[in-house]
Amino acid sequence: MNYAKMHPSAVRQLIREGKITGQTSGMCDGYAQGNLLVLPRSEAYDFLLFTQRNPKSCPILEVGDVGSRLVKRMADAGDIATEIPKYRVWENGVMTEECTDISHLWRDDFVYFLIGCSFSFEGELLAAGVPVRHIEEGRNVPMYMTNIECEPAGMFHGNLVVSMRPMPADQAIRAVSITASMPRVHGAPIHVGDPAEIGIRDIHTPDFGDSVTINKGEIPVFWCCGVTPQSVVMSAKPPLAISHAPGHMFITDVKNSLLKD
Amino acid sequence: MNYAKMHPSAVRQLIREGKITGQTSGMCDGYAQGNLLVLPRSEAYDFLLFTQRNPKSCPILEVGDVGSRLVKRMADAGDIATEIPKYRVWENGVMTEECTDISHLWRDDFVYFLIGCSFSFEGELLAAGVPVRHIEEGRNVPMYMTNIECEPAGMFHGNLVVSMRPMPADQAIRAVSITASMPRVHGAPIHVGDPAEIGIRDIHTPDFGDSVTINKGEIPVFWCCGVTPQSVVMSAKPPLAISHAPGHMFITDVKNSLLKD
Repeated sequence: MNYAKMHPSAVRQLIREGKITGQTSGMCDGYAQGNLLVLPRSEAYDFLLFTQRNPKSCPILEVGDVGSRLVKRMADAGDIATEIPKYRVWENGVMTEECTDISHLWRDDFVYFLIGCSFSFEGELLAAGVPVRHIEEGRNVPMYMTNIECEPAGMFHGNLVVSMRPMPADQAIRAVSITASMPRVHGAPIHVGDPAEIGIRDIHTPDFGDSVTINKGEIPVFWCCGVTPQSVVMSAKPPLAISHAPGHMFITDVKNSLLKD
Repeated sequence: MNYAKMHPSAVRQLIREGKITGQTSGMCDGYAQGNLLVLPRSEAYDFLLFTQRNPKSCPILEVGDVGSRLVKRMADAGDIATEIPKYRVWENGVMTEECTDISHLWRDDFVYFLIGCSFSFEGELLAAGVPVRHIEEGRNVPMYMTNIECEPAGMFHGNLVVSMRPMPADQAIRAVSITASMPRVHGAPIHVGDPAEIGIRDIHTPDFGDSVTINKGEIPVFWCCGVTPQSVVMSAKPPLAISHAPGHMFITDVKNSLLKD
């Protein structure tokens, strides 16, 4: 099946039925995908405040009501507990389980956070003629821990994780302008140029994802990354949290172009 | 003294010392002012989520840590409990007291919310040659209850309050463009034209503030209003809340121009 051309609700049904369990990259052309974090209500206030204080790394698409699995703003009646291909369960900051459905784990005090994802702006970059190296090379985007501390909030603290895309200067300028208009999916870059300035020792050895080719004359462009919340969960060690597995996202019914405001 | 030309920290000192107890409109040219809401931690999660779901009416400038009076992002060590000229105490949705200092009421479980204010974009409108009628006429801005329901969050619910500024169509277009770039102070208008469409029966009888002249050929332009949170507190009736008194704002150390992102 050509998942790229299917409507999100149809793909989410296949995910719900267990017929899709792989990564969602490239599915449902033009529709926004989201990162997931689920926390008990007792930790949810601190995390909601963390997202408010760190909007570039944790741009909120939707927060569920306490106990509710229903996605109603970003989807037409989506189910956050069954419509993501793969989940990760975290206990005290350590990943303890991967599963394809979290219905059996869901509790009345759970709150889900759906967070914007750079898949959205990559589509806009490509549409504007700005090539994205890791897509060209068929790899995962390179991601790095930085020396930039997130603004802490209650129990949550940790350093910013960034993703990197190398490009010539003229394309970098275009990429800044395009992504600046999409604050709900990380917005403008956080840094351009010397990786050492934000605490990255070796640009060819990313902390997450894959290394990509940087050609002569290209500069690295760094965006806040949706892996930051997971990294913060690993630092803050809440008793229980559930996330999506990397690359296995929630596909919303909302087009990327509507995330521009 | 010429308060318009003073630095916010100097004016806040006079407020702290009880030497200024009046409205802050026109003070500290170019610096952003903020609306206040204080809630106990037990109600703070629902309200924080309410602001996340209603960013145009409740654009957050800063949220304090639990129990902290310190304003550290929007001011250089501001004190939220003494540096506002007049406060209002609300019990079960009813205003029970006005006072010029809330030190004696402050509790370890209090959380403050500092919320963007239309004073900020009015300065930008004037600077761009868009006259603001209620300033010209020396009145308070006219404000109206609408039939637009805010997105509820937990215990908080209620209808949107809007402010209105009449202007010719060409200025309205300029005003949309200017305020659209200031999402942290209500952003672009929510409505232009027929008041009945958003449930306003009589444009000449505002629910809050004063009526202003609307000249032939002018259309009313409506923005989300910072009175919305107070109206929502009146609807939701939390046991205890504290707000600023209308027009008696917290003057930040941050210039309006920096609220554009």
